[in-house]
Amino acid sequence: MSSQTVPPAPGQSEFDQATVVRDRGDGRTFDIDIDGGWTVGPKPNGGYLLATAARAAGAGVLAAGTEHVHPLASTAHYLRAPDAGPAEVSVEVLRLGRGASQARATLIQGGEPCVDTVFTLGTLPRPEDAPSPWWTGPDPFEVAPYDDCMRIPAVPPGGEFTVSIMDRSEVRLDPSVLGFAVGEPSGRGDLRGWISFADGRPADPLSLLFFLDALPPATFELARTGWVPTLSLTTYVRAWPAPGPLRVRQYVQSVDQNRIDEVCELWDSAGRLVGQATQLAGIRIPDGVEPPSP
Amino acid sequence: MSSQTVPPAPGQSEFDQATVVRDRGDGRTFDIDIDGGWTVGPKPNGGYLLATAARAAGAGVLAAGTEHVHPLASTAHYLRAPDAGPAEVSVEVLRLGRGASQARATLIQGGEPCVDTVFTLGTLPRPEDAPSPWWTGPDPFEVAPYDDCMRIPAVPPGGEFTVSIMDRSEVRLDPSVLGFAVGEPSGRGDLRGWISFADGRPADPLSLLFFLDALPPATFELARTGWVPTLSLTTYVRAWPAPGPLRVRQYVQSVDQNRIDEVCELWDSAGRLVGQATQLAGIRIPDGVEPPSP
Repeated sequence: MSSQTVPPAPGQSEFDQATVVRDRGDGRTFDIDIDGGWTVGPKPNGGYLLATAARAAGAGVLAAGTEHVHPLASTAHYLRAPDAGPAEVSVEVLRLGRGASQARATLIQGGEPCVDTVFTLGTLPRPEDAPSPWWTGPDPFEVAPYDDCMRIPAVPPGGEFTVSIMDRSEVRLDPSVLGFAVGEPSGRGDLRGWISFADGRPADPLSLLFFLDALPPATFELARTGWVPTLSLTTYVRAWPAPGPLRVRQYVQSVDQNRIDEVCELWDSAGRLVGQATQLAGIRIPDGVEPPSP
Repeated sequence: MSSQTVPPAPGQSEFDQATVVRDRGDGRTFDIDIDGGWTVGPKPNGGYLLATAARAAGAGVLAAGTEHVHPLASTAHYLRAPDAGPAEVSVEVLRLGRGASQARATLIQGGEPCVDTVFTLGTLPRPEDAPSPWWTGPDPFEVAPYDDCMRIPAVPPGGEFTVSIMDRSEVRLDPSVLGFAVGEPSGRGDLRGWISFADGRPADPLSLLFFLDALPPATFELARTGWVPTLSLTTYVRAWPAPGPLRVRQYVQSVDQNRIDEVCELWDSAGRLVGQATQLAGIRIPDGVEPPSP
């Protein structure tokens, strides 16, 4: 976020508004309105849908009597892409525990299940109350300073469609991974940069589910290919992030038989690994597009 | 596997026998018998349960009319640990597609859901028929030659309980990551070695779900701590493995607020990344146990 931004009042941010869930009264069925401002091309972003489902799951376990509203582990399988507009989330509490609870949430539109999610939910203390990590292996990855990174626009020059999530978030990428933007991919499928909400909303556990699926595909830096439809997305929220933009990295390990994996990491301003994700996605390699040389 | 082993006839291996699913006739409910020989201490191994659920899910989509029997992406949330003995798997087909299908499978024992799983299923060609990967980033990690690695026993000297999966599989670890076995962890949470079935059964897509959760916790190499109960496990099967033992690596990135993540990779004898997993697990750090110095 730019230093001039005044953060929105709690609950009034674009993210809070777009992920509102309305309980029909049974603590199990929640009406939602899929917001057309959180899309990649014509379709809603997968991380945004996951965050909306997580909010419903959190409300579901809260209604069932626990305080476990933070999505520690989430998995989503994408069945069919919903459209912007009304939909519902059906929540089934699977287990209520002392330290964590589990719930399934299915996003349904027009009677058709669109996203199948399962959550392990718990309660994360705010950064000022959380103990330091007991052990962390690697240091945070290297990335250029925030002001040296370049913001990704919602409509890139010559782009074929609008990626409206880039107006909701502020994704700034390291200049060394921006070759794709000028048609010269680096040959390394490894994006690094910074991410925050464009309207200044502070990051919290829920928002990490969106941030973990908001970068362009890391395959953009391998060759000229398109956006990749997610089949399965898994996220872990390890801690409530300290204030400030998050350091983000997304990389691919293998492109094999029209599928890719992508790993995403989020580190906060205090140098803590706060979010992790992995996804399996489909990819179409256009005829004649060759992989980079090793 | 040792070179003397004669592989079991198809369907007769310990793994095939232990993961049998018996359709009650509706293509949706499958009786299983959780085998007491696939345990860590008193409880069944999570990867073994996931593989059994995957077999039921594959049978479910096969009954529904597709050939998508291979678990490309799997997620499991562990609700409560079942005991060895009779149980059932309830399968719900979520979507039948051209290239892939999706199904949910719930492992139930005594009327209680124990493991909630969701699969993206497809059809993987055998290694001799599969195109080479389009691109792979990193080379396979370094590991000592097979014969220089040490087999993990089911009952370690002075061990407190039996890890019977070590009799079903042959897990051989690099000597450089075996400090934990003599009470001197290396301080790096990164295990490397080789894995195969003890009875010589060849690896196939289904078996990777077990292999991806069969190593000791990578935290053993950080400090004296116990086995870690998995909360959420995600696996990707990228290709049908070529014959021979698989190269396996499992590492941890962060131990934070009594939870750890672990990443597991499997590479086959042809140098292909064939399996990937990530898990979030609980950990109890005993009083007085300090992390290794950075």
